[in-house]
Amino acid sequence: MSSSEAIDWLAAVDWDDRGLVPVITQSVETGRVLTLAWMNRESLAATVESGYATYWSRSRATLWRKGETSGNLQRIVEIALDCDNDALLLRVEQIGGVACHTGRESCFFQILDGDTWVTRDPVLKDPQRMYGLHE
Amino acid sequence: MSSSEAIDWLAAVDWDDRGLVPVITQSVETGRVLTLAWMNRESLAATVESGYATYWSRSRATLWRKGETSGNLQRIVEIALDCDNDALLLRVEQIGGVACHTGRESCFFQILDGDTWVTRDPVLKDPQRMYGLHE
Repeated sequence: MSSSEAIDWLAAVDWDDRGLVPVITQSVETGRVLTLAWMNRESLAATVESGYATYWSRSRATLWRKGETSGNLQRIVEIALDCDNDALLLRVEQIGGVACHTGRESCFFQILDGDTWVTRDPVLKDPQRMYGLHE
Repeated sequence: MSSSEAIDWLAAVDWDDRGLVPVITQSVETGRVLTLAWMNRESLAATVESGYATYWSRSRATLWRKGETSGNLQRIVEIALDCDNDALLLRVEQIGGVACHTGRESCFFQILDGDTWVTRDPVLKDPQRMYGLHE
């Protein structure tokens, strides 16, 4: 890929005023929506180049390859852009079956039940052990 | 639901500095991720009260009940909040099977193929006819 071609496909994305775009990540195996995260140009380019989801951490202001600490990498199967070019959808193979730092498959485990958010979904891996493995 | 309880579950959401939260919407029938849209407190309250997805249109700065023009309403099955409280996932029944204004099921129909975004997915309904039906 030449640098001018790279500029073209990255420029097609309608980056917001912070240079970011929201990114939905979905498991190809289970169909579950795993996470909502953010990317800047550099992280999208790194995702495509490496074949693994690499986000932009807004709190730490740094590139963040998902799973670099826990081992729970997300292998890219497909990257889709929405009709107005301001959101991305990654379809991934979720290594280890766990995307959430709480040890659950998905980060979306609080369900509105009447007027209360109720925690659902089993914890598949002990978070302390998940992160301890790579310490 | 009393107003104080309503305040509690709405206050659990970590609204951004514009008072908004990104909202992923997924079809319960097909598992497809349909849209990424935005809500403010009023639109989330309206969604819960009506049982149909009601977003906040950033471009028009107004509440927007999805499908109010096209008829393609989204009936709420489940509302989930993510682990850090700053994104929502709606699981919906997509009336008419079409969420995108282009007449496709999903807005995520541009797929990255090498260095090009390629349009996939059939147009299920003629957009002119879809919107004309209610004119």
